[in-house]
Amino acid sequence: MTIRDWARCREARVTTQLDAARGGVTTEEVAFAAEREGVAAERLRELVAAGRAIVPANVRHASLEPAAIGSELRCKINANIGSSSAASDIAAELAKLQLSVELGADAVMDLSTGGDIDAIRRAIVERSPVPVGSVPVYNALASQPDLSRLSAGDFLGAVERHARDGIDFVTVHAGLLRRHLPLVRDRVTGIVSRGGAIMAQWMLVHEAENPFYARFDELLELCRGFDLSLSLGDGLRPGSGADANDAAQFGELEVLGELVRRARERGVQAMVEGPGHVPLHLIPENVERERNVCDGAPFYVLGPLVTDVAAGYDHIASAIGGALAALHGVAMLCYVTPREHLGLPDLEDVRAGVVAHRIAAHAADVALDRPGARARDLAMSRARYRFDWNEMFRLALDPATARRLRAERQSGCELPDDCCSMCGPQFCAMKLSRELEKPGSRRSG
Amino acid sequence: MTIRDWARCREARVTTQLDAARGGVTTEEVAFAAEREGVAAERLRELVAAGRAIVPANVRHASLEPAAIGSELRCKINANIGSSSAASDIAAELAKLQLSVELGADAVMDLSTGGDIDAIRRAIVERSPVPVGSVPVYNALASQPDLSRLSAGDFLGAVERHARDGIDFVTVHAGLLRRHLPLVRDRVTGIVSRGGAIMAQWMLVHEAENPFYARFDELLELCRGFDLSLSLGDGLRPGSGADANDAAQFGELEVLGELVRRARERGVQAMVEGPGHVPLHLIPENVERERNVCDGAPFYVLGPLVTDVAAGYDHIASAIGGALAALHGVAMLCYVTPREHLGLPDLEDVRAGVVAHRIAAHAADVALDRPGARARDLAMSRARYRFDWNEMFRLALDPATARRLRAERQSGCELPDDCCSMCGPQFCAMKLSRELEKPGSRRSG
Repeated sequence: MTIRDWARCREARVTTQLDAARGGVTTEEVAFAAEREGVAAERLRELVAAGRAIVPANVRHASLEPAAIGSELRCKINANIGSSSAASDIAAELAKLQLSVELGADAVMDLSTGGDIDAIRRAIVERSPVPVGSVPVYNALASQPDLSRLSAGDFLGAVERHARDGIDFVTVHAGLLRRHLPLVRDRVTGIVSRGGAIMAQWMLVHEAENPFYARFDELLELCRGFDLSLSLGDGLRPGSGADANDAAQFGELEVLGELVRRARERGVQAMVEGPGHVPLHLIPENVERERNVCDGAPFYVLGPLVTDVAAGYDHIASAIGGALAALHGVAMLCYVTPREHLGLPDLEDVRAGVVAHRIAAHAADVALDRPGARARDLAMSRARYRFDWNEMFRLALDPATARRLRAERQSGCELPDDCCSMCGPQFCAMKLSRELEKPGSRRSG
Repeated sequence: MTIRDWARCREARVTTQLDAARGGVTTEEVAFAAEREGVAAERLRELVAAGRAIVPANVRHASLEPAAIGSELRCKINANIGSSSAASDIAAELAKLQLSVELGADAVMDLSTGGDIDAIRRAIVERSPVPVGSVPVYNALASQPDLSRLSAGDFLGAVERHARDGIDFVTVHAGLLRRHLPLVRDRVTGIVSRGGAIMAQWMLVHEAENPFYARFDELLELCRGFDLSLSLGDGLRPGSGADANDAAQFGELEVLGELVRRARERGVQAMVEGPGHVPLHLIPENVERERNVCDGAPFYVLGPLVTDVAAGYDHIASAIGGALAALHGVAMLCYVTPREHLGLPDLEDVRAGVVAHRIAAHAADVALDRPGARARDLAMSRARYRFDWNEMFRLALDPATARRLRAERQSGCELPDDCCSMCGPQFCAMKLSRELEKPGSRRSG
């Protein structure tokens, strides 16, 4: 099926993926996503119907190749791209999109806050084969920096603009309510979610409840019109290990659970965002709690970062937490790059972030024996044992980097193919080990 | 106490650390190591006496600042350095030593197999404040490449040479026996330990039992003479996820458990080496089993790598496995660099490897609330919330890299100090969050 066919399918569709799944209909999107997963289409339809998997697919995203997100499926990863006021360049963002997809990102979020935000978003959606997410409040605030002049309608309007542009899922920080704000006061790092901080400010300035919460039914109607999926943001995610799993975080999570149910009732697909900074020992509790409170809605976590002192290497702190979270059932990991806490990622940061989180997600897929995961590892190991370098590079998560790292050290030392510069020909264990297998073979020199 | 004093203490000592601890004597080395750990000296003495912690301290290693390794202590990391036949340069290896120590490596192993191996080893020991380990069989084989001409005595002689040079702990693959060899036949990647492969070849060529096993008592006497600690190598560690926790690996582990007991009986400190390549879900079992079989001897693991397809990024696959292993009680992580499986690490690979594993070890220390770990994270988070960049860099695991990554993106965009190029001044959540805290503060523009 070609991309063009997809667009036709979507135009003809009148219900959402969730409505269809509940009605027993396996949509083309579900069928396509199921085939990619290696699971039966009927099984994926059941998961979508139960809200335990989502297939974000805005009817206007013509270039989309649908994918499913859920804890029983291959663990997905998302790459955040987008401009800031300090760095805004449409070509640079498209390069990040292309590299992310090439390296295996399953989704991207355009978090642009600077430059021609609308143009960047449209260009990304137009070219992206993976689901594209966004945070419409950034757009609202960039258009009108004075929060006191921004109305609840402006926020909903921003969501609608993104929906019309083909965005597949939007983060709305609808669970952060006025009653949660006092819970933040004693935190070490307060509110570290941009969207969360904006909603908190808005509620104080307007002395009103969170507009996405207050007008959640309208938001759901808007989503239905495009089959826009909701990513229920955690505005109170902990920004330091000390704030993890606190009353603020879990208080907001309770509201997100309520919103998951309301979204499902209206046939709108929803996933739930999670932290953030969480020490290793608190990660299982975190995932378990989300599963219970949100009735198995796909959990989509940023990191979590397992320490606060990894500046410059936060992609690794995040991959560690992400792997453990994925092992416990997280459905999608949002990448973190080495530039986290320090600046806007550049293209090499994107590469490092995507690969680190592909490793984390794949490690969980291997552990949980999801389709294809162990087979890929096995193929790599067999290639390694027979010194088939081209096959090793092909199977590596980042072939270009693996090839470069080997080539750099091989040059000048004229090593044969059946070893590398780590051990040289005399000390290669696998070479020795292969010799052991030869019948009657005895090494004597 | 100065380094010179240490040397005098050692010269005067006639028993090993283990003998002393059992006799109720708190040595200067134990006292020093305990103070660094933030634990009572008497407690560390008890752990050493029980064999659940070791303080590797060759009496001839004059520059040593003693440290303890054990599952109840701060998780340690080891950096492998050393030449190969493809790349051998004494200055380059000393630069790796210096950088490793600067970035927080708790031990280094000199795995040189090329060039002037003896000179490299002596130079490293002379300059290293951290315990230095080695694998003497490499040295034996480098001197005499024809295994059929290498005797058991040659192997013991190599150990003695390393002991005389002040090496603090030696890896000996004494647990890999002839009866284990058939267990390797059906493996995907055979034997991937260099020392293990050499011992296997030697046993076949000589039709004799593993010489380190056969002459283990002699080895122990030799160790006693210098208080050389043993690192009981896992010659059959899995080299692919498919081979993890198999009969070969666990068969050898049983022997290592026996050797731990024999070493303790003779007053020789011993730790046990572990894999390797282990999928996430098998890591807890791995650590638990070692604890039981080896009666709580410190477990020192390479990785484990949680997937086989991360070539070019194996430091990350290893940090993920290492963090989980450390959470379950591993005492020391051996680093893996991005060059693993591809070539001999250079200085930048060493940097990446050390920092990745410091993150993993520290994440476990935070989770297990070991002395100082959470305090460092908290100090970092507080500095972050008040935009104290110098303090953030000071607390970061790799200050130079953190500073560089921020500076690269700040230049040219003239941002104030209380934000970064990720969000710019308007979208900084922490800045917004701090404003929320000001009494009566309302944002209006």
